[in-house]
Amino acid sequence: MSEVHAARRSQLRDRCAAAGEAAVLVSRPANIRYLAGAAPAGAALLLGPGGPAGPVGDVLLCPRPPSGDLAEGQVAGDLRVRVLPAGTADAAAAAAGLAASAGAELLAVEEHDLSVTRHRALGAAAPHVRLTDLSRAVEQQRLVKDEEEIACLRIAAEIADQALGELLESILVGRTERHLALELERRLVDHGADGPAFPTSVGTGPNSGVPGHPPSDRRVEEGDFLSVCLGADYRGYHCELGRTFVIGTSPARWQIELYEVVFAAQRAGREALAPTVEYHAVDRAARQVLEAAGHGGGLPRRTGHGVGLEIHEDPELSPTAMGKLDACVPVTVGPGVHLPGRGGVRIDDTLVVRPEADGGPELLTITTKELLAL
Amino acid sequence: MSEVHAARRSQLRDRCAAAGEAAVLVSRPANIRYLAGAAPAGAALLLGPGGPAGPVGDVLLCPRPPSGDLAEGQVAGDLRVRVLPAGTADAAAAAAGLAASAGAELLAVEEHDLSVTRHRALGAAAPHVRLTDLSRAVEQQRLVKDEEEIACLRIAAEIADQALGELLESILVGRTERHLALELERRLVDHGADGPAFPTSVGTGPNSGVPGHPPSDRRVEEGDFLSVCLGADYRGYHCELGRTFVIGTSPARWQIELYEVVFAAQRAGREALAPTVEYHAVDRAARQVLEAAGHGGGLPRRTGHGVGLEIHEDPELSPTAMGKLDACVPVTVGPGVHLPGRGGVRIDDTLVVRPEADGGPELLTITTKELLAL
Repeated sequence: MSEVHAARRSQLRDRCAAAGEAAVLVSRPANIRYLAGAAPAGAALLLGPGGPAGPVGDVLLCPRPPSGDLAEGQVAGDLRVRVLPAGTADAAAAAAGLAASAGAELLAVEEHDLSVTRHRALGAAAPHVRLTDLSRAVEQQRLVKDEEEIACLRIAAEIADQALGELLESILVGRTERHLALELERRLVDHGADGPAFPTSVGTGPNSGVPGHPPSDRRVEEGDFLSVCLGADYRGYHCELGRTFVIGTSPARWQIELYEVVFAAQRAGREALAPTVEYHAVDRAARQVLEAAGHGGGLPRRTGHGVGLEIHEDPELSPTAMGKLDACVPVTVGPGVHLPGRGGVRIDDTLVVRPEADGGPELLTITTKELLAL
Repeated sequence: MSEVHAARRSQLRDRCAAAGEAAVLVSRPANIRYLAGAAPAGAALLLGPGGPAGPVGDVLLCPRPPSGDLAEGQVAGDLRVRVLPAGTADAAAAAAGLAASAGAELLAVEEHDLSVTRHRALGAAAPHVRLTDLSRAVEQQRLVKDEEEIACLRIAAEIADQALGELLESILVGRTERHLALELERRLVDHGADGPAFPTSVGTGPNSGVPGHPPSDRRVEEGDFLSVCLGADYRGYHCELGRTFVIGTSPARWQIELYEVVFAAQRAGREALAPTVEYHAVDRAARQVLEAAGHGGGLPRRTGHGVGLEIHEDPELSPTAMGKLDACVPVTVGPGVHLPGRGGVRIDDTLVVRPEADGGPELLTITTKELLAL
């Protein structure tokens, strides 16, 4: 994998060189992981002036000896790992000092990640270096995934499907939202996840359909809607799977109607996914189905979002989002409706945008979207 | 509780007024929770110019309607909750705009929390307002806890003690670190925790004694050291409890010796806790016991840290930490030694600093520190 990371760093260097920025300092953990293969706590990644063969090269500065795949002094795909002396306050400031001592004149830093206080410390550590804004260049580069990244997402989705499938075979009535969430998280890990991708949400009865509802002590009752949203983190890649069920033998009329509306909205969103489609058009496709059914008030501000090394990353599928989808961009499509006091429905999938010629969007989370009565 | 939060805001206002700063914008979630009683995602807290009776007063700006204890338009202890229009990018920038429209000339912001990008957006939203640095004023104010906060920590510690106690009664040999960690987290929630205070660490055999070791698939074996570090989050307050055990009937000689050294170091650290004692002196008390026994190399950079609304907060108990303990400051004391390839010992308690006249440090985590053979 180290050649993959070296190639990513080289692409970032090229992009920055074109902007006149000779050295780059990456501080955001997910971006460091993308470019270096690992992000030890508190680390900073410096792409020094003069390229990989320059006086500094590519260096990962770590406050403590890293564990796992990285070792001090290791050279992997031109990346050196350097452990800072004990007491070094900030690896990013140390990296700026290193860039300065290597003769860098310009250093691009992540202004959206660095606090004002840390940015000031960087300036003090490298007083003759002009700091510029790298902006979200690495996030941009992370947008389109390679097939190895998509393979990790596929496994993450498979794990989430398995965990949910097993839960559905057990008795649910009488159990609390908290216990169902904990059991799902245990099953994710049992099936090989490094952990949950985000705190598992379980909502029953009036809590169903609330996005991100934190599990409470409410117990599952006959006649409830039960909505579940979970995801696995597999080798750093995060997926999302949301489903809603009915508890008992026959759903009520309002439950069937609400489910059908959300199902239609989610399908419309999924079917809108294609390269060159605008982000807001995907949101629109799902949202207008809900609006037409009279559920336009109080909808969540977005229908979905990108996933990868973070559970929420670009693109955002919302009414105001600017930009167009590309092939190999994984996103969630998860509209929902919540009726205060009664409950609601949310259906959420992780998919990869693919061109029509490749069969259209690839569905990663394959748990059925029929309205199951459990 | 709302009077408590109003009093905290009033104390912060007084402190800022003394520094000539009429309006204050708090963006760090734990600080917002401390001052407002809740910190909805993405919220910002503005203490407007002119005090609570000024044109703006104290306002919590939320990107979405808050759930739980807060409701839109609610006035609790002079705090108003305002939900921002959909599409507002940043509550902090909206708060800066509000301060500007209310005639604020100076606005103190948390430069250690705001990214350079967000800080710039604040400046653009309030072009005629001069932004100053609030610095860590709220963190400072959070250092000494009131008795209600300590009561929450006491319950959090009790929950952690219960969860660990139950685990020790079960069969451990053959179970993986991952499963033990998940079971501990389930038991924390069973006993009333809102969740784990931090990811539970379980280390067996060669992994024992590694600070923050992420649980792996290694199974507990006869003769292993087993080290566990867990904590409960109870109403936002976080505790930490670490213990090390031996698996099997009789510990090896080296295990007894290592345990005794760490035990002595931890006791020395605990006994050093008193008002007016320097932070680094507590670290020194524990560290010198380990050094004298020949374990000075590769020690963690700190012996303990403050706990409260965050699991790691001020003070830091480390060789370079500046400052003196106060009464009613809760801290952890958790030294440890890890011998590469063999394993190690860590013993970690949460305590509250109390004066000698009140009986000295109050131990919150009361699980035995005898070397148990399980």
